[in-house]
Amino acid sequence: MYDLIIIGGGPAGITAAATAINQRLETLIIAERWGGQTTYAMQLEDMEGRETITGETLLDAFRRQLDYLDFVRDFDTVTKVMPVEKNFVVDTVRGDRYEGRTLIMATGAKPQRLNVPGEARLAGRGLSYSATTHAGLFLGKDVAVVGKGRRAQWATAGLARKAHQVYLMAPEPLPDTPLVHKLRQRSNVEISEGVVVKEVGGERFVENIVVTMPGGEECAVPVKGVFVKLPRTPNSDLVREWINCDGDGHIIVDVNCATNWPGVFAAGDVTHVSEQALVHIGEGAKAAISAYHYLLMH
Amino acid sequence: MYDLIIIGGGPAGITAAATAINQRLETLIIAERWGGQTTYAMQLEDMEGRETITGETLLDAFRRQLDYLDFVRDFDTVTKVMPVEKNFVVDTVRGDRYEGRTLIMATGAKPQRLNVPGEARLAGRGLSYSATTHAGLFLGKDVAVVGKGRRAQWATAGLARKAHQVYLMAPEPLPDTPLVHKLRQRSNVEISEGVVVKEVGGERFVENIVVTMPGGEECAVPVKGVFVKLPRTPNSDLVREWINCDGDGHIIVDVNCATNWPGVFAAGDVTHVSEQALVHIGEGAKAAISAYHYLLMH
Repeated sequence: MYDLIIIGGGPAGITAAATAINQRLETLIIAERWGGQTTYAMQLEDMEGRETITGETLLDAFRRQLDYLDFVRDFDTVTKVMPVEKNFVVDTVRGDRYEGRTLIMATGAKPQRLNVPGEARLAGRGLSYSATTHAGLFLGKDVAVVGKGRRAQWATAGLARKAHQVYLMAPEPLPDTPLVHKLRQRSNVEISEGVVVKEVGGERFVENIVVTMPGGEECAVPVKGVFVKLPRTPNSDLVREWINCDGDGHIIVDVNCATNWPGVFAAGDVTHVSEQALVHIGEGAKAAISAYHYLLMH
Repeated sequence: MYDLIIIGGGPAGITAAATAINQRLETLIIAERWGGQTTYAMQLEDMEGRETITGETLLDAFRRQLDYLDFVRDFDTVTKVMPVEKNFVVDTVRGDRYEGRTLIMATGAKPQRLNVPGEARLAGRGLSYSATTHAGLFLGKDVAVVGKGRRAQWATAGLARKAHQVYLMAPEPLPDTPLVHKLRQRSNVEISEGVVVKEVGGERFVENIVVTMPGGEECAVPVKGVFVKLPRTPNSDLVREWINCDGDGHIIVDVNCATNWPGVFAAGDVTHVSEQALVHIGEGAKAAISAYHYLLMH
């Protein structure tokens, strides 16, 4: 019986595990792999050594600690999570069954990729999945945002303050919201609706995005950056039947990372709290402290 | 006119400023000094190089960035904060007046010290103000907790899982709560009520705590650690008349660090969210991202 089982190996899960261990909780973290390492790195042709500080050094220290204390981690895939009396039973693909008195869901969200030529090759070389982290690197440049939902809209609004020109390539018509209304008024935002992305082009770094316009013509729009902001799916399937989620499947938490189910906490991209590594580091630590306080009382 | 004015130079304020600068917001951080550096360090006689990872390296990087971009910071004391139309006006002791479109309160909390001989000298050498950060260093040792409120009770409960013996030295009788009830049942917790602390003793490290017991006798209790957990006062006076606070004066925030006043956000010890440097780093980043989203919409 563990005091705490954490599911997920991204920034939130790693920090939760390190914090719990520091509190001497009997902790188990189950993850398919450690995450968060490559997602935030970005290289650009003319980058003058300026660097985005994202907490990677801190996460590295935590990862090393978890690798050293290897009995606290299990690289495996969770197939089932069930509440059993006041505890929680976790089954994995390899057939292991673990039992814990508290649970932290740090399972993240499934990003939706473009799945076009050039995407994988140019990721981190102009192609980004996080405007919050990387928008500041594209000051005065031309960039494209692909998507139509809330995440694409915020990314476009943020980039419009920094980039020279922002092309919002929406696969379908945008909804009619106050934010979209604002975007339509910005002189440096060009919105194309009903666009199909065919390719992200560039030799060593992003040079253009090739799209089929609604009229059928194909064109290569020269840009230095491509932000892929398609809807993501929160990985909350494991608990969605008994933990409250919002309409998009995000686990709903309070300011202390508590869910509706006593003893279950959540942190990171699986929740509706903002997507950024530094925030997830804090949320992971907070979830672990909340689990610790819960254990002290029960 | 700044996009964002941040008040406070602890972990939450520093991280908020770094995050806002990364989003290219016109940012000003006003602090009496940089904080968070010495608070978390702890040396013990027999410490085998084990270290608590607290995010100090990350904060150092942020502090260096803010020192380099010296136009974003003002070492000064804020005397007044007022909402004026949709903006905020901030006055300082030196007579400067700044105006911002958004505001982050990261003003922290005033710790209550023991004010007895030995306290200042042995701080960080066995004497601690944070059980969350340091409790794990006192595995199997005898420690004292000074206080009576919620913070002292949680510290005692946490230490009772790790330390050999915990002496809870309460200046007044404890309230009758479920947690106090649990503490009274723990065999390794000794509660003394109506105690006056006279001194923290020890040459290079904490060796004992000298107290006057309710009966009048003075005794030196041998301990390796002293946790001072007296009530703290959140520094919310500047905004308490127009921002919602709880009964203890903590600014009330939602999961996105928003207060009740549009454009005002709060992070760190001035809020009711748990007190730990890693958590405050996340809250600071979150408050800055929320301010950024607010600006994109207004």
